[in-house]
Amino acid sequence: MTLDDCRALDAQDPLAALRDQYILPKGVIYLDGNSLGVLPKAAPARIAEVVAKEWGEGLIRSWNSAGWFDLPQRLGDKVGRLIGAAPGEVVCTDSTSINLYKVLFAALSQQAATGRKLVVSERSNFPTDLYIAESMCRERGFTLKLIDASELPAVLTDEVAVLMLTHVNYRTGAMHDMKAITAAAHAAGVLTVWDLAHSAGAVPVALNDSDADYAIGCGYKYLNGGPGAPAFAWVHARHADKFVQPLSGWWGHAAPFEMTPHYRPAAGVSRYLCGTQPIVALAGLECGLDTVLAAEPLGGMAALRKKSLALTDLYIQLVEQRCGGHGLSLVTPRAHAERGSQVCLSRAEGAYAIVQALIARGVIGDYRAGDDQAPDILRFGFTPLYLGFEDVWNSVEHLLQVLETADWKRAEFNAKNAVT
Amino acid sequence: MTLDDCRALDAQDPLAALRDQYILPKGVIYLDGNSLGVLPKAAPARIAEVVAKEWGEGLIRSWNSAGWFDLPQRLGDKVGRLIGAAPGEVVCTDSTSINLYKVLFAALSQQAATGRKLVVSERSNFPTDLYIAESMCRERGFTLKLIDASELPAVLTDEVAVLMLTHVNYRTGAMHDMKAITAAAHAAGVLTVWDLAHSAGAVPVALNDSDADYAIGCGYKYLNGGPGAPAFAWVHARHADKFVQPLSGWWGHAAPFEMTPHYRPAAGVSRYLCGTQPIVALAGLECGLDTVLAAEPLGGMAALRKKSLALTDLYIQLVEQRCGGHGLSLVTPRAHAERGSQVCLSRAEGAYAIVQALIARGVIGDYRAGDDQAPDILRFGFTPLYLGFEDVWNSVEHLLQVLETADWKRAEFNAKNAVT
Repeated sequence: MTLDDCRALDAQDPLAALRDQYILPKGVIYLDGNSLGVLPKAAPARIAEVVAKEWGEGLIRSWNSAGWFDLPQRLGDKVGRLIGAAPGEVVCTDSTSINLYKVLFAALSQQAATGRKLVVSERSNFPTDLYIAESMCRERGFTLKLIDASELPAVLTDEVAVLMLTHVNYRTGAMHDMKAITAAAHAAGVLTVWDLAHSAGAVPVALNDSDADYAIGCGYKYLNGGPGAPAFAWVHARHADKFVQPLSGWWGHAAPFEMTPHYRPAAGVSRYLCGTQPIVALAGLECGLDTVLAAEPLGGMAALRKKSLALTDLYIQLVEQRCGGHGLSLVTPRAHAERGSQVCLSRAEGAYAIVQALIARGVIGDYRAGDDQAPDILRFGFTPLYLGFEDVWNSVEHLLQVLETADWKRAEFNAKNAVT
Repeated sequence: MTLDDCRALDAQDPLAALRDQYILPKGVIYLDGNSLGVLPKAAPARIAEVVAKEWGEGLIRSWNSAGWFDLPQRLGDKVGRLIGAAPGEVVCTDSTSINLYKVLFAALSQQAATGRKLVVSERSNFPTDLYIAESMCRERGFTLKLIDASELPAVLTDEVAVLMLTHVNYRTGAMHDMKAITAAAHAAGVLTVWDLAHSAGAVPVALNDSDADYAIGCGYKYLNGGPGAPAFAWVHARHADKFVQPLSGWWGHAAPFEMTPHYRPAAGVSRYLCGTQPIVALAGLECGLDTVLAAEPLGGMAALRKKSLALTDLYIQLVEQRCGGHGLSLVTPRAHAERGSQVCLSRAEGAYAIVQALIARGVIGDYRAGDDQAPDILRFGFTPLYLGFEDVWNSVEHLLQVLETADWKRAEFNAKNAVT
């Protein structure tokens, strides 16, 4: 595999034109779209319009005239097209952590009468998921049981109320088989809560086809909604109109402007709204969603997935071909069915400094610290919407140069000896 | 009182120049800043900068380089200057409803060991406050007791755990004496939770001087932060480092980037953070806050309060002087100590149609429906930052014309016979 081969792949790439939807900084190869997505070209003008026209001129009238009231549901339907959900099943609102609180609360409420007392999650799940679950379990008389993925499905006994998993692991890029795990959970009487933070817009997700129960996800990673963009929440139709929403604010009321003193939840997923939503932030999210939906005529998430796997396959191949002997190990699964849209490497020393040296060269990935159970990680996200095969070649070339020229040792030295 | 008298008052107004901080639509007299504040002139450029430079160019690096991590605390300190709180005591985050959930949860947790089982609030409180409290009480074994303000302080028995009040009533504009009520509550062993949605930036608030326990408030009303701007939360220093945060997300962790599996709350009010915050929305909020803080060299909230009372006094006087015999009744208290920054009128019929006819003329107030216990309301907010005495005269002139020419009857007819 050569640079010319990579250029040839780009020339044949049916998705290559999608990159023109974004403003990418010059000199940057951005491998961190799994942390914060890039800026859609449409976003600055759309956000400026919302600020100047809808807020500035329309003022309070824009709740009706600019359609602000319906934004969470309207954008939710757009998200739904990316995650295998039907119209009316998703709302865009609040943050991922808060939405997780809502859906976990709902799932535990449903299981309250069963006497099941365990919430099962992965030890390597994203911390905020574990923190939310830990507090809620303590408060509501459940126990949070942390497992390794290898313990599934054996751990799903009749003591388990809820299985809470992140579909694609933030550290390793390992992906669960949502359909098989959900089937195993249901066979054991367990409800499933899925965190799609590293899935929505990154890999095909089929919530209804997988028969999942609850799901939440992030707007500012692969959906390119902007820093801290509103998140989303989904609930299966069989639970709609029945689930409990603990954050029972007026926006989730069946008739918010009747201003009645008692709470009456809205039908369906709309009850997952709580307070007034950030309208400007929702406008940014819509621009991001539209850039992902622009792939629909080109094959949609299936086509994006095909390219994503080609990019990550290529990255793995080139690292092994060109950076052998430099102590890097592959953390992300090789099997396509088990891989998200990122590649993670580990190294016995220098992982942080290597990432810093790469960033100094414009190759932006990120570092995730290890602990006694897991190594330090160099994490690289590959977003097929705006990355090409030459980008992959160049990012490996930079990695090789950092390793060979010991850039990272200088970065490490500088970090340790910084004048503060 | 004549139009010329009003113009003379404007000419002498030491705060008149503050109006230049905003972009106000032509032909509009905006009396709805208590629902959605107006657009600061600085906001479009600042928001554009955050979008294009911080998000678009800085990307993930902006968490550090653009100071995104500290925004909730940095803006919280600005809010603190307006509500009598010390630096480090306030964070800007999430929505008002969600922040109320956090502080009410914390207060109930503190009282759990006392066996007190009542949460007391006003029947006329803003619905979302009642909805949040209603669900939480049911979930946690408390009872929500709704009262009229006249029952205070007698209702504060040793069965009451928490008194949850909105400082300035959204419907009537009636203001509580925070210090006296808090003292009565504490004397009875009751913790206080204050909603400052219609207070922050509208009236002087002295949280520490009043010895309050918990408070939350809104960013998009008198703070001019933009539609759905992040809200704020405050906790008294004596509760800091001890209170429970149910929404225990990673942003409220003592060391979020250690990514440890167990939750360890951050010190002080920072634990009220949960998930990733909307950075663009926070930038809008900061522009709004800065316009209110710009009054500090001119006397700050005390000077704004003086002008606010002069504006609302004038409005009441002119309505009575010029619109007598048209069936309007004053709902808002006349006594300065009991009045927020709005004037509410009631009328046996046509309140909705009158507000609509005024809006058609560019005088934007709002309508709040009544029920069997309260009349329909015409609600007018007076924001001394951008309203003058001539605006008050003109708004009453329009009201008079609507009443005299029966504009409102035409508006009502049109509403009832709209082609849909």
